[in-house]
Amino acid sequence: MPKSPSKYAPFPQVKLTDRQWPSRTLDKAPIWCSVDLRDGNQALIEPMGPDRKRAMFDLLLRMGFKEIEVGFPAASQTDFDFCREVIDGNKIPDGVTIQVLTQAREELIRRTFEGIKGSKRAIVHLYNSTSELQRRVVFGLDRQGIIDIAVAGAKLIRQLADETPETEIVLQYSPESFTGTELDFAVEICEAVMEVWQPTPERKIILNLPSTVEMSMPNVHADQIEWFCKTMKNRESAIISLHPHNDRGTGVAAAELGLLAGADRVEGTLFGNGERTGNVDVVTLALNMFTQGVDPELNIDDINEIVRVSEYCTQLPVHPRHPYAGELVFTAFSGSHQDAINKGLKALTKSNTGKWEVPYLPIDPQDLGRSYEAVIRINSQSGKGGIAYVLEKDYGLQIPRRLQIEFSKVVQRVADETGKELSPADIHAAFKAEYLEADSPLELVEHSTEPRGPNSGARAMSVVMRRNGETITAKGKGNGPIDAFLDALRQGCGTDLHVVDYREHAIGSGEDAQACAYVEVKTGDKTLFGVGIDADIVTASLRALVSAANRAAQ
Amino acid sequence: MPKSPSKYAPFPQVKLTDRQWPSRTLDKAPIWCSVDLRDGNQALIEPMGPDRKRAMFDLLLRMGFKEIEVGFPAASQTDFDFCREVIDGNKIPDGVTIQVLTQAREELIRRTFEGIKGSKRAIVHLYNSTSELQRRVVFGLDRQGIIDIAVAGAKLIRQLADETPETEIVLQYSPESFTGTELDFAVEICEAVMEVWQPTPERKIILNLPSTVEMSMPNVHADQIEWFCKTMKNRESAIISLHPHNDRGTGVAAAELGLLAGADRVEGTLFGNGERTGNVDVVTLALNMFTQGVDPELNIDDINEIVRVSEYCTQLPVHPRHPYAGELVFTAFSGSHQDAINKGLKALTKSNTGKWEVPYLPIDPQDLGRSYEAVIRINSQSGKGGIAYVLEKDYGLQIPRRLQIEFSKVVQRVADETGKELSPADIHAAFKAEYLEADSPLELVEHSTEPRGPNSGARAMSVVMRRNGETITAKGKGNGPIDAFLDALRQGCGTDLHVVDYREHAIGSGEDAQACAYVEVKTGDKTLFGVGIDADIVTASLRALVSAANRAAQ
Repeated sequence: MPKSPSKYAPFPQVKLTDRQWPSRTLDKAPIWCSVDLRDGNQALIEPMGPDRKRAMFDLLLRMGFKEIEVGFPAASQTDFDFCREVIDGNKIPDGVTIQVLTQAREELIRRTFEGIKGSKRAIVHLYNSTSELQRRVVFGLDRQGIIDIAVAGAKLIRQLADETPETEIVLQYSPESFTGTELDFAVEICEAVMEVWQPTPERKIILNLPSTVEMSMPNVHADQIEWFCKTMKNRESAIISLHPHNDRGTGVAAAELGLLAGADRVEGTLFGNGERTGNVDVVTLALNMFTQGVDPELNIDDINEIVRVSEYCTQLPVHPRHPYAGELVFTAFSGSHQDAINKGLKALTKSNTGKWEVPYLPIDPQDLGRSYEAVIRINSQSGKGGIAYVLEKDYGLQIPRRLQIEFSKVVQRVADETGKELSPADIHAAFKAEYLEADSPLELVEHSTEPRGPNSGARAMSVVMRRNGETITAKGKGNGPIDAFLDALRQGCGTDLHVVDYREHAIGSGEDAQACAYVEVKTGDKTLFGVGIDADIVTASLRALVSAANRAAQ
Repeated sequence: MPKSPSKYAPFPQVKLTDRQWPSRTLDKAPIWCSVDLRDGNQALIEPMGPDRKRAMFDLLLRMGFKEIEVGFPAASQTDFDFCREVIDGNKIPDGVTIQVLTQAREELIRRTFEGIKGSKRAIVHLYNSTSELQRRVVFGLDRQGIIDIAVAGAKLIRQLADETPETEIVLQYSPESFTGTELDFAVEICEAVMEVWQPTPERKIILNLPSTVEMSMPNVHADQIEWFCKTMKNRESAIISLHPHNDRGTGVAAAELGLLAGADRVEGTLFGNGERTGNVDVVTLALNMFTQGVDPELNIDDINEIVRVSEYCTQLPVHPRHPYAGELVFTAFSGSHQDAINKGLKALTKSNTGKWEVPYLPIDPQDLGRSYEAVIRINSQSGKGGIAYVLEKDYGLQIPRRLQIEFSKVVQRVADETGKELSPADIHAAFKAEYLEADSPLELVEHSTEPRGPNSGARAMSVVMRRNGETITAKGKGNGPIDAFLDALRQGCGTDLHVVDYREHAIGSGEDAQACAYVEVKTGDKTLFGVGIDADIVTASLRALVSAANRAAQ
């Protein structure tokens, strides 16, 4: 097919009379449902194993999600096992409901019920595809044929729910590919499912209207939702749920306008992981509400921690410019921005109104456990005098981005003290002095790994250090040398460090290669870096930890 | 200040009567203006040097931008020099206008005019900050004081424009921090500037209304724009321009709804680079229009190339889930999605309507120079059997993401042939056979670098290869070993490869360390990978190139 805009049809407008949503405002949080463990997980190159699933589930609970789709148990043994693990291990707190996805086939629904057996309350999420295109090219069925599939599924779920009185079953139905479904048919099939389930205002059904593929501008999505809510019967017995994707880069807007249009609930993921361009990002949605004075009903106190767990689980990065979460979003490079921010912060302290208003900072970074960073460049425009450039080009050091930001302040201090533009050698000297020669109070003398005991999975390490001239011998255990060394530091020196990031790379190659290790550690309220270089990768790592410990102590 | 939503004030609603924008559709492209070289550039950790600026400028021209903000020449010597370079070097094609930013201070405006001297046509972009907050805490000025600054700047620009008849000067005025400015004041200050400039429908002024910080939902932004357009005098003599940022993750939506509300022009950057969370992404905006049957008036035929140049210039990644551009956005992991896509593609061929309609693919990947990738997992849910996991964990190979996708097809073929689930050793064997042992028709025997000639900046290389048993000696030149080897391949073997990506990493450490090189090459229509391992990093790279050449030949 030749490339031409005419091969694409414009998305049809919705015939909506008396449109209400553009005049409304959002004044309360929707019901949130995380689909990180299902829609997010299924789209990963490397789906989460049990450890990553546990880490994600725990994070979602800490954040305060009350509804969590834990998987598609009938399609995946790992998902099934994880259901059993959280139920049998009593890991679902009171007030939290797990949700499981299933297609309408009998054996899948029966297997789904095996997965959730014993839970107090569970949302069974039934879906089938309803769009005109999928009916025609995938299923070869007419409208009634598609309705029959949904109704048969709902009936079986109703029967199995009656046979399982110990679990409160909530039915959620999704006309999958809702955005490509004629609106009257979407209402018709949802009403047919409601006819089976007989929901009431006290025992509502969840009708989830997915933008499985985002196909229109967000205002058209809002028109669809408003039309649906106005047209369906028995609106008060249904929770209308949104499930936006982000193919057009407007998933957040589609969710917000969809809520204005009458929806009650949003399914999404942390930082928008999910199929293709991802699901809607619930972190951004929640913080957008927060900055408008609305309680988002999610705990987002330490966004760096949420980023780290999320990156661990998904093995995908959060972009440096991701709203609220990216490494660069509280960073001001421009002098006029820095000046305005400083004046704003001073005025804020003086006025003491309790209202946040600072130019260029739409949210107080401290509310997210972060801080504002004014990055002053050594040579603001050339790009050849930059710190990272110089250290990599001339000295082979590939310093992580957050360390670049931290170190830029050191450079600025040196520049202020000396009153001159710094040469590459000056910058390198400042780097060495700050990180590589940070050998007080602690100094690493030697370390050795002890043979593992017959019943021990842990690695034991002996460390000799010097503190202010005094020699200290300490032992520690852990699942690797870093872990064991941290344990030894704790036991022998009373230094308590928590590693939040670690990287190491070679400088040079062949026999002369050195390893350079960077660790970012948290100690008390502070987060800071240490750096170590050595021919031995383990020694380099331990030096980096000592460097961080010494910098924290100063 | 304690964390609480009550410390944030909700953004005020716009008192807009007879709201029109929600009923409109977008049916033509706006005027695009790229601000990659200014707003994008100033927010980089490492601002672009001359080489990167040139690469970006050339890319923007290839894409068909007619308006390009090349910098802030009065604030930066590099920006000034780049202005001179494109003007004195005759690098501005007919029909393309450069734009330069300036504050309202006299010496800056005079310096700006030195920067653009000799150009045929230039947009002088004057700004000052107008928001209530900035007037109060940054400038300590009332409304009239802020108007006086803008008017004085406009007067001097008018005077200098009259003194420079050889250059057609277009005035653009931005009430910076427009989104935080009372709407009536925004109109008042713009009208005061128009009073000086005396625009006509034939000689329009550009009024740029920046969301310097995105502070409200996109529908409120649209209300602001519609209110402004309806209220201002002499609307037909102004081009209304948008400059959205993305603090709330709704920059694309804000631009789209702002265009519905009456704007004519959009300033933005490729993939949304820019201050903090970035400027609006013009690539996504343009392709959103394309998928609605509207000609975006930008050439986006080879999105991978645009990503590569953009990543080179900004030194920031494009996220794997970035709309249209990310590595994962045309990838289907789910079996039911793969099935629906296959049926859709078949139906498309059969129906031959000329209209694109395929489930889960909102755009034909081939329109962007890409292809749809069905990723079949070896073990779809465990996460421990994944290809990348196995190769990294057991064999130290950190294979790039696109290579993972390419290699997954090889693995799937082997799995289909053998009919069994593959062990890590099977996967590694398949990897070796496909990439490392791809030694036919070409085999690398030896290579040596020749001493540079006295007047030659290029590196010359001699290569001995074997082709189907026959020994070939070839010579090549280039700026490095890869470049020189490609030249030798071309000269000696008639093999024409173009390297699009290159990575190398160490396996192991110390004396036994090996280097593993990955090259992604383009040859004809095909893009594919080659891999090489050797203790010498140069040999590893050349082996990778030979591997790619052999795979391309098969």
